[in-house]
Amino acid sequence: MVDVAVIGVGQTRYGTFPEKDMKELFVEAFTEALADVEKGIDPKGIQEAFIGTLETGGNQLGNVAALMTEQAHVPYIPASRVENACCSSGFAFRDAFMAIKTGMYDIVMAGGVEKMNDLPRERNRYWLGVSGDVEWERLAGTNFPGIYAMIALRHMYQYGTTKEQITGVAVKNHRNAVKNPKAQLRFEITLERAMNSPVLAYPLTLFDACPTTDGAAVAILCRGERVEDFTDTPIYVAGSGAATDYLALHDRKEITHLKAATIAAQNAYEQAGLEPQDIDVAEVHDCFTIAEILAYESLGFAKEGEGGRLVTEGLTEIGGRIPVNPSGGLKAKGHPIGATGVGQVYEIVHQLRGDVKERERRVKNAEIGLTHNVGGSGGTAVVHILKR
Amino acid sequence: MVDVAVIGVGQTRYGTFPEKDMKELFVEAFTEALADVEKGIDPKGIQEAFIGTLETGGNQLGNVAALMTEQAHVPYIPASRVENACCSSGFAFRDAFMAIKTGMYDIVMAGGVEKMNDLPRERNRYWLGVSGDVEWERLAGTNFPGIYAMIALRHMYQYGTTKEQITGVAVKNHRNAVKNPKAQLRFEITLERAMNSPVLAYPLTLFDACPTTDGAAVAILCRGERVEDFTDTPIYVAGSGAATDYLALHDRKEITHLKAATIAAQNAYEQAGLEPQDIDVAEVHDCFTIAEILAYESLGFAKEGEGGRLVTEGLTEIGGRIPVNPSGGLKAKGHPIGATGVGQVYEIVHQLRGDVKERERRVKNAEIGLTHNVGGSGGTAVVHILKR
Repeated sequence: MVDVAVIGVGQTRYGTFPEKDMKELFVEAFTEALADVEKGIDPKGIQEAFIGTLETGGNQLGNVAALMTEQAHVPYIPASRVENACCSSGFAFRDAFMAIKTGMYDIVMAGGVEKMNDLPRERNRYWLGVSGDVEWERLAGTNFPGIYAMIALRHMYQYGTTKEQITGVAVKNHRNAVKNPKAQLRFEITLERAMNSPVLAYPLTLFDACPTTDGAAVAILCRGERVEDFTDTPIYVAGSGAATDYLALHDRKEITHLKAATIAAQNAYEQAGLEPQDIDVAEVHDCFTIAEILAYESLGFAKEGEGGRLVTEGLTEIGGRIPVNPSGGLKAKGHPIGATGVGQVYEIVHQLRGDVKERERRVKNAEIGLTHNVGGSGGTAVVHILKR
Repeated sequence: MVDVAVIGVGQTRYGTFPEKDMKELFVEAFTEALADVEKGIDPKGIQEAFIGTLETGGNQLGNVAALMTEQAHVPYIPASRVENACCSSGFAFRDAFMAIKTGMYDIVMAGGVEKMNDLPRERNRYWLGVSGDVEWERLAGTNFPGIYAMIALRHMYQYGTTKEQITGVAVKNHRNAVKNPKAQLRFEITLERAMNSPVLAYPLTLFDACPTTDGAAVAILCRGERVEDFTDTPIYVAGSGAATDYLALHDRKEITHLKAATIAAQNAYEQAGLEPQDIDVAEVHDCFTIAEILAYESLGFAKEGEGGRLVTEGLTEIGGRIPVNPSGGLKAKGHPIGATGVGQVYEIVHQLRGDVKERERRVKNAEIGLTHNVGGSGGTAVVHILKR
């Protein structure tokens, strides 16, 4: 079997950038990824590209993968746009991994980009809404806060999870984001303030939701046999798992966990020959705070129904047993839809190399990391395990 | 290296189906593909899906890959939407091929689907327009007929290609489509009628353009070692080549050929260890008639500038030296954007098996076939070589 490693990563700051278009954001991340390759790399050596984006409509640009590679001055290579809602670039990363696994290519890039803040709010809501079930949920008036609120309520009812635990995720992730110069929401919040923020859909309040974000991320992957040409600190992709689920909640047997994410995690662990307790650090898909608690359970960091306890006990803080979202997560680092999956890889690669610039944000001696990227309300999911 | 074969294909009729939605079209093609697997197949054995669609906007559906697999009753498997404009499912087929090449999966499906005819014409024009260059071409008022007309004019000027040769492609492809019950435009046209049809953008007249089409196609791919479980007539994927190009014509050094398609073809031939003269039958991307002439040249069926002669000499007719678009092509079989690439595979698989139902449409003793699928005005392209 061919080994696959990440040899370079780049990511823009996440935020609101009215002065930058989609192409500029992509090139910024790509340029950083090239510079991040320790021994240097000729961009002409990149043989294929997979680029995740929801293309949130306002850009009016199509054939986006070719457009991005053109703008990045790597024309002519095969490039595809991958769209799986909020886990578009998680799947793009998986495609890049598989392209090298074929033995046909040595160097492949995975990217993600989203420009959300040039759309009026109403339009953004429309575009995001289509990533869940449209016919039975969105057209009936439901939106993502409403869907995740139903999941949260059921979790509270069934397992005794508390609003304090759910919103505690936001407090932790904001605290981490303060130390991350690339994060969008760099301010601490108290549990009290978050609990008392305006209700979006009970039990979710304002600070339970991620922001609307512009951003891009790029990872350069390399066949194992060639990594020494590029870096002495390759980060290997040990496992890639992905799955789908019924889009509408009413079609699922249970709504207290996201089955697609659970299957994806199982497949990734199996491929890597690893267990949940082997993971030293994880970036998970906390589009809403409750989603991080679901992630704990999907990933086996906690038993079904017990995810809330990890928050109460501080186990997922930096310095805790299994630090989750040291970057600030989608919640506070930001969630540029199509870029999020590769953005998670960016964070984990730096954590595993031990070269996160901000010392207080480093997870010490991390050797094995995980990314968990979910599309819509769990219709799609992809999990990767990375290894030093 | 792992061998990869197509073991089953399905395709809806192409046309205008106001009574069917995107999901029904996809399931119809999927159901036929399952039934087409000679020794039968349990759909639960399908391990991953790649589905191409431009999602022409009117559907208001997102996370489409998960939605299609859900509807097809193959839930939970990894599924991704691939979008590369008009070659979306050509790239989805390539992804499925690569997924098996990794050695990680035995059975993977590639699909494509498009529902274009429930959009008002104006909206369709908008959605299609974004697949070319938006900033410099579309927003300046250019559309695809205009872009291909510029290419055609230059080809005429530079090489002496005639309007009769260009429009002759339409006459041939309509003639083939008459014999194809799954084609959209099943009527013959005379060269005189086509030449005198209304001008779209000189030199292209109405019959030089493909129609607006609803349709879907699915192919089931299998690891070589397991094909005997499913069929005695596997069709192997001998080569897969893909490439991109600058989106806007003014950025390209030459506009008389589509460089992405030429590179893709070279890569596919190289991988297959084959030459243009080895190809017995081809389905090529004739969104406009001039595009088929460009395809002849990209694929090495004719020298640069000499593609028009193949039409004059009838070499690409069924029964000619190298029959092209025996299905009727995009021009007359129809062009349901996202479905076109896998729809081409559907035709070639039947031609190579020798089981095309309509005897007069069969290319006799075809052993090696080729598909050529282009995105936008050549921003992306993908070529596959299939072998009996």
